[in-house]
Amino acid sequence: MSAGAGRRPIGVFDSGMGGLTVVRAVRAALPGEDILYLGDTARVPYGSKSPRTVERYSLACQRFLLDRGVKLVLVACNTASANALPALAAASPVPVIGAVEPGAQSALAASARGRIGVIGTLATIGSRAYEGAILARSPSARVVGLACPLLVPLAEEGWTHGPIAGLVARRYLSELFTLDPDLDTIVLGCTHYPLLAEELAAAAAELAGRAIAVVDSATAMAEAARAALFGEAGSPAPPPAGGRGQLGVFVTDATRMEELAPRFLGEGLQRFELVDL
Amino acid sequence: MSAGAGRRPIGVFDSGMGGLTVVRAVRAALPGEDILYLGDTARVPYGSKSPRTVERYSLACQRFLLDRGVKLVLVACNTASANALPALAAASPVPVIGAVEPGAQSALAASARGRIGVIGTLATIGSRAYEGAILARSPSARVVGLACPLLVPLAEEGWTHGPIAGLVARRYLSELFTLDPDLDTIVLGCTHYPLLAEELAAAAAELAGRAIAVVDSATAMAEAARAALFGEAGSPAPPPAGGRGQLGVFVTDATRMEELAPRFLGEGLQRFELVDL
Repeated sequence: MSAGAGRRPIGVFDSGMGGLTVVRAVRAALPGEDILYLGDTARVPYGSKSPRTVERYSLACQRFLLDRGVKLVLVACNTASANALPALAAASPVPVIGAVEPGAQSALAASARGRIGVIGTLATIGSRAYEGAILARSPSARVVGLACPLLVPLAEEGWTHGPIAGLVARRYLSELFTLDPDLDTIVLGCTHYPLLAEELAAAAAELAGRAIAVVDSATAMAEAARAALFGEAGSPAPPPAGGRGQLGVFVTDATRMEELAPRFLGEGLQRFELVDL
Repeated sequence: MSAGAGRRPIGVFDSGMGGLTVVRAVRAALPGEDILYLGDTARVPYGSKSPRTVERYSLACQRFLLDRGVKLVLVACNTASANALPALAAASPVPVIGAVEPGAQSALAASARGRIGVIGTLATIGSRAYEGAILARSPSARVVGLACPLLVPLAEEGWTHGPIAGLVARRYLSELFTLDPDLDTIVLGCTHYPLLAEELAAAAAELAGRAIAVVDSATAMAEAARAALFGEAGSPAPPPAGGRGQLGVFVTDATRMEELAPRFLGEGLQRFELVDL
């Protein structure tokens, strides 16, 4: 219903449920906005698929949201952002915001000396998308990347605090500091990682013996969405009378929904709808 | 070359590289045999795909091996075994051995009181295939299952010993013992888990305060292969003059091959070939 006037929602899609961390950040930054979320849970993970397949699936997700009249598309999935953003932007009449550009911008804003470490999935790190985006803005920056395959299942299990999360965080970050002992900023380049932000920040500070900035692309995307809708200096629209904007959640497979959704959203999910793309 | 006479290889296929634990077990049990291995690494993991898709991919893998004249097919992947074995057996002129039946048989042989815990991926545990196979043979057995999503990335990272592996093993197994405090046998129902067998066995013994049998389907499949080729009481053919049988490895995507293959095979891999199914 892209012709509909009046209130139009923000669209967010992801390969799975991790993108609900982006929804959570958008709701915090723009509480009055309605949001439609699509998790392509039947085809998760995108990270092990070819770039052409990721592009095809991403276009189908975006089409689903555009058909429902969204005024803005947020590509929560880092793999989709790294592989499909040009095709998505070309196919959309409304602005499309990926995970990588806002994350890169946020890292540069936080970094005092431009020494940045990026952690993400194998596919995201392999794409070197964050490195490209950071160096395009700041050629003198130095970027190292590390894939951290245990962090997604840790977040999904809900083991986000305690000895296992702490040991895994220290093990990965000690490897990251080996790649660059002088890094001052770490980018959480995966939708799941904000759940582990506390353990990661603690491990980073402990390993470095100094404060390390930890930025996540979910928060950065919410800020980019606010800027796209209201301008850099604008203030968000007030929430509608009676409370927050509506959230509609669609998934392509319902497995583990009740378990996973609240972890990433940070609150219970009233209902969701199963759809076939 | 199914018409070829003389030496014919054993075929093994898997959704990825984990099935090399089955190759390792077969080479230990039947050192003289030639083996062809196919890892469908471009489409890994099968666990998140629909049963129909898993069946279609599995049939393509088996066809690839049959076209190369294998005399026996081992379905190393538990998801493929749980979802596609009837279709695979119907489509093959040679015997087809899955992971579940041998693992179930091995568990019952090891269990004194028929109290069996199965650990595996979400898809394998969700299918309840081990439970079905165990109860079909021994209706008085009691079977509990637990998905352990962190164990695959732990094995792939090579973090198979030490504090993280120990803590993760204890955490999962304490949950398994909550489901049945009296279990006496644990089945490692995933190709990756044999790499973690020592930590899992130690954690199980510590939690139970008594010896717990730990059986893995890789070893059980190798025994089933020996029985299929030489009969229950038969002895394997001697290795050919000059050493062990040949191993040919094919994959559909080469990502992380050099890193992962030796972990599961237990020795270096001389070469592999990239194929398109």
